[in-house]
Amino acid sequence: MSRTVNDFGLVCGILPQGARNAITDVPGVRVGHCTLRDGDINTGVTAILPHSGSLFRRKVVAASEVINGFGKSTGLVQIDELGTIETPILLTNTLSVGVCATALIREAIAQNPDIGRSTSTVNPVVGECNDGPLNDIQAMAVTEDHVRAALAAADDGPVEQGSVGAGTGMTCFGFKGGIGSASRKIALDGSDHHLGVLVLTNFGNAGDLVLPDGRRPSPKQMEPPIKAQEKGSVIIVLATDVPLEHRQLKRIAKRAGAGLARLGSFWGHGSGDIAIAFTTANTIDHDSKADLVEWRILNENRIDLLFRAATEATQEAVLNSMLAADSFMGRGGKTRVSLADVLHGAG
Amino acid sequence: MSRTVNDFGLVCGILPQGARNAITDVPGVRVGHCTLRDGDINTGVTAILPHSGSLFRRKVVAASEVINGFGKSTGLVQIDELGTIETPILLTNTLSVGVCATALIREAIAQNPDIGRSTSTVNPVVGECNDGPLNDIQAMAVTEDHVRAALAAADDGPVEQGSVGAGTGMTCFGFKGGIGSASRKIALDGSDHHLGVLVLTNFGNAGDLVLPDGRRPSPKQMEPPIKAQEKGSVIIVLATDVPLEHRQLKRIAKRAGAGLARLGSFWGHGSGDIAIAFTTANTIDHDSKADLVEWRILNENRIDLLFRAATEATQEAVLNSMLAADSFMGRGGKTRVSLADVLHGAG
Amino acid sequence: MSRTVNDFGLVCGILPQGARNAITDVPGVRVGHCTLRDGDINTGVTAILPHSGSLFRRKVVAASEVINGFGKSTGLVQIDELGTIETPILLTNTLSVGVCATALIREAIAQNPDIGRSTSTVNPVVGECNDGPLNDIQAMAVTEDHVRAALAAADDGPVEQGSVGAGTGMTCFGFKGGIGSASRKIALDGSDHHLGVLVLTNFGNAGDLVLPDGRRPSPKQMEPPIKAQEKGSVIIVLATDVPLEHRQLKRIAKRAGAGLARLGSFWGHGSGDIAIAFTTANTIDHDSKADLVEWRILNENRIDLLFRAATEATQEAVLNSMLAADSFMGRGGKTRVSLADVLHGAG
Amino acid sequence: MSRTVNDFGLVCGILPQGARNAITDVPGVRVGHCTLRDGDINTGVTAILPHSGSLFRRKVVAASEVINGFGKSTGLVQIDELGTIETPILLTNTLSVGVCATALIREAIAQNPDIGRSTSTVNPVVGECNDGPLNDIQAMAVTEDHVRAALAAADDGPVEQGSVGAGTGMTCFGFKGGIGSASRKIALDGSDHHLGVLVLTNFGNAGDLVLPDGRRPSPKQMEPPIKAQEKGSVIIVLATDVPLEHRQLKRIAKRAGAGLARLGSFWGHGSGDIAIAFTTANTIDHDSKADLVEWRILNENRIDLLFRAATEATQEAVLNSMLAADSFMGRGGKTRVSLADVLHGAG
Repeated sequence: MSRTVNDFGLVCGILPQGARNAITDVPGVRVGHCTLRDGDINTGVTAILPHSGSLFRRKVVAASEVINGFGKSTGLVQIDELGTIETPILLTNTLSVGVCATALIREAIAQNPDIGRSTSTVNPVVGECNDGPLNDIQAMAVTEDHVRAALAAADDGPVEQGSVGAGTGMTCFGFKGGIGSASRKIALDGSDHHLGVLVLTNFGNAGDLVLPDGRRPSPKQMEPPIKAQEKGSVIIVLATDVPLEHRQLKRIAKRAGAGLARLGSFWGHGSGDIAIAFTTANTIDHDSKADLVEWRILNENRIDLLFRAATEATQEAVLNSMLAADSFMGRGGKTRVSLADVLHGAG
Repeated sequence: MSRTVNDFGLVCGILPQGARNAITDVPGVRVGHCTLRDGDINTGVTAILPHSGSLFRRKVVAASEVINGFGKSTGLVQIDELGTIETPILLTNTLSVGVCATALIREAIAQNPDIGRSTSTVNPVVGECNDGPLNDIQAMAVTEDHVRAALAAADDGPVEQGSVGAGTGMTCFGFKGGIGSASRKIALDGSDHHLGVLVLTNFGNAGDLVLPDGRRPSPKQMEPPIKAQEKGSVIIVLATDVPLEHRQLKRIAKRAGAGLARLGSFWGHGSGDIAIAFTTANTIDHDSKADLVEWRILNENRIDLLFRAATEATQEAVLNSMLAADSFMGRGGKTRVSLADVLHGAG
Repeated sequence: MSRTVNDFGLVCGILPQGARNAITDVPGVRVGHCTLRDGDINTGVTAILPHSGSLFRRKVVAASEVINGFGKSTGLVQIDELGTIETPILLTNTLSVGVCATALIREAIAQNPDIGRSTSTVNPVVGECNDGPLNDIQAMAVTEDHVRAALAAADDGPVEQGSVGAGTGMTCFGFKGGIGSASRKIALDGSDHHLGVLVLTNFGNAGDLVLPDGRRPSPKQMEPPIKAQEKGSVIIVLATDVPLEHRQLKRIAKRAGAGLARLGSFWGHGSGDIAIAFTTANTIDHDSKADLVEWRILNENRIDLLFRAATEATQEAVLNSMLAADSFMGRGGKTRVSLADVLHGAG
Repeated sequence: MSRTVNDFGLVCGILPQGARNAITDVPGVRVGHCTLRDGDINTGVTAILPHSGSLFRRKVVAASEVINGFGKSTGLVQIDELGTIETPILLTNTLSVGVCATALIREAIAQNPDIGRSTSTVNPVVGECNDGPLNDIQAMAVTEDHVRAALAAADDGPVEQGSVGAGTGMTCFGFKGGIGSASRKIALDGSDHHLGVLVLTNFGNAGDLVLPDGRRPSPKQMEPPIKAQEKGSVIIVLATDVPLEHRQLKRIAKRAGAGLARLGSFWGHGSGDIAIAFTTANTIDHDSKADLVEWRILNENRIDLLFRAATEATQEAVLNSMLAADSFMGRGGKTRVSLADVLHGAG
């Protein structure tokens, strides 16, 4: 297991962590990575699957929130109109969104031959960050096969974090970034529910990071100062098994931004900061014949619990993405130090 | 009964009208007017009550859509965040929004003494149009007593239309405007539901009106040409007993704009074109102790029925507002001719 | 030249057409098509180039408006955040968005080797409609070479319309749809400006079409009735040389929806109705060193002119897309009749 | 002068403060208070005047951002559509929005007799928080005279902070809240500009406050624990003399939310968290006859400076609102301790 906030005594808020402290604490959610690491190529694909059935046939209720829209994610228009997701969510580098979207379409057609024939088309959802500093992004190395590998690798166990999958070549607050995850446990009507977060971190200026205990570690000594203009991005995927409607999910997704801000981010101009949230507790049957559908939603007076969970788990998942990553040498020998190493050195 | 599209053979679309062809075809919805007509004062208040119980205690699920935001309606921010309405909806002239909001607050406190003490405050919802051309709007003649009179007058029968309540001094496409209503009947899972619309019409340039049969009646001969810049507004209130979530209601509310466009409007710059929609089929208990709440929503694959109903009923309600209004002399002797008179004259 | 509204005496509103009655009436705007028509393959790519220089280096001020978001267009998030477009705008079929986006990226890198290295990445803009009924969309026949062909074919002359480029396999109100264009001339401060529109039409139920003169032509006799649920889409690209800021462009883009509604559309559930607007009069220098930038905007009190132009030109461009298209046989022998033939037959 | 962050060594970020560290560092901006403090009445009005001329005749370019919309502010619809503010901005308690709006209208008519007659109506802008715990809010004690008093008291000097004006009865993180201000100095093209913030603070659960140095002071010992559900609100007014367009101002206004999150807020469900931003550098002449207007905007590549300034100044203004306020006894003897006293006690 990789290092996490727990190994460094960093506490993000007051709600309890789930058993895995990962997005996979939400039952049915699976994560898979395909990592490309070869010379100047340091990139990959990460897939989040909301449930193990057919997502096109049984869509999950969803919402997105554009915290800052300097980004090239695809699929958000339809999420916001219809309030559903009908494919796995893929994360990758900025220039590979197209190939990932195409691969998702091909997979969906293979499983649903009626797509674009006797039923509607399919809306692929892909988020991205720019790993250009550490990856030869112009090589556009990700292929549809890599997408299939990430999907095939998906499981519901502990989430591999750090420099893996789409996170391979990412940078966060000047440290090595990547994939991070965390979760919070929430009791409702007497039974346990979870909100889990998975982040792809590539945002934040060196020198701006604030830890929950007030420390401000900086990679400055090891790196030439990174100029003030933020050029990163972060994708935050939030999953929960609490029954919610689209509007509630959108409110919750927005709180991912509070988690980023607590770390010192001001959602910089050049950053595509996008949150995508779904619940596994309300699904939409693509083929339903009923005119009216039964479902459940959260009593809005309890939603502060979810807001707090989203804020804390986002903050913590970002820290985990940095702590899980080892120091890294990327394209042209450029290096990123691990936050974990700096904290140990300072300890 | 006042004149309607049916008296003139004007057909808006293909769905059947409800029995009253009014917003009160939605069970429980009541409408009340208070009309001020005295010399240069030609204004008033119209109240729409979604149900007959305590709206603060049992809120209706709601949404709003700003078609064009040159307007001073109040309460929309909270409708969009929480997806509920917790007071009657008032319509009035532009400069009387404040006094109407204050009156709604006072009524809510009288019925709920815990407001602002042991529970939250209350969000008054008021829509407006500028009746300045026919009303001495600077006199700010509407008082809290007028609001109470409109609320007290509310009933669930046929809706009085034309130059009544908030519609007293309004102008539409150069003709006399005012209050209009219409409805559509929709069968779902074998039982009848309705979508009803009530409009306050004060929009459209003279010469731009198009009837459903392609005729383009204009009041030009009787009035000096009204200059091209639109300075009106229109408020569209949509009610339904179809179970819907906020996102679905927002989609439906948006289609009010299609109804306006079919009449020749392009949602002019100076016009506050605002739609407010609610369903009586999903209510939110202010005092609920449960964490999770059961409800029903529409299968989204059926929502075209509601889109069509909202478009047709809005188009028709606007026409009814003009057809029900007699020709009118307002502030300083300014006149507005009735569309009904022009159509009869042309017939 | 193909048939247009002018050949049928159909008049959309009151503003004068530009010389070409096309988006290319806006100086500098170019349009290119690549058409794929081979057996069951009936699809293609259409490219709109806002100016002839480097779009990445000199971005155009832009906005988008999601009229109905059942669509897979890409690039809108960044347009709305930054208010600019930095690539050509491509139109294609739903499942080819990914390959078109990838091709735009590759073209941008070829011309700007600093992308993703020493400067930011690039945001490709691609709109789409589902030509599945007439095209073997699952074949995903569009390649990056087809994109390059469409870009290479771009010129600033008359716009080829009907079943061409992305419009090859499209259907509109049950008739053959495709590419259409129209424009309006606007005088400001004594000199002529234009607003031009190009549409990719694939929306509307058979039987819902209303002509400006009130006629309601329907392909019903020739086709089995198309079921009520709308599954189409329409992309509207609006270009102007009037200086505008992003907010103004967004207001104008929204009025494309009024043009659609005048034709009988209610922006159906299954339709991705997306407007993208840009002005060539305010450009953003990617490499500017100045902190503050001079520019001009429209006096908002004149914006009704642009609203009217956007409404009228959208309505007219849609009609042109249908009138320019011949009757068509597509995948599996399915046919779509030309609106022009029906109007002639009725004449 | 009241106590500020500077007296306690609390540093919010890295940008320099303006000379007054207040919203009045932006040239021309004036602030006035009217304080009501009499027994159970603890409330008031605060007025922010963007410039000293006629705001209706010369509107300021503006934007708003709803961080969380459980609030009753009025005027935001038109700000977002037109991108301007044309009255002073008033802050007050939740139930007094109506009377404040009415007073603004009456003032505007007095100065512009053409309003609602030969020109358009006026859009009053009023923000609010619920001071119910310390104020007899049901008494609705604010009158139009109090608004006139606040407007008359406006000056461009140091801003009185703490329990004053609209802030009289407010609570923040369980401490006494109220009015706070701060500013940041920004150099652009070689000359100094400012971004100033004024906040009305009534948000945050006791126990959630985090100081910039990581300390977490809590009023718990002196108060019964405040239950977890947040019921507050915060209004953030941002002023700048940097030339900006509406879209840029909206992006900047959004960053006020980052400032709140850094203090421990997650933008709680029951909180109306609203930011309103304006620039004095681009004004709109109500009576302009020109069709096209010259103005300047910020090179977007410099906007991170403004984002950072908005985040830091909001965080600092909130702290100042608490530090400037003395401990307070309100309605029914309820008390709120001063954060300043707790920090001194801990020192």
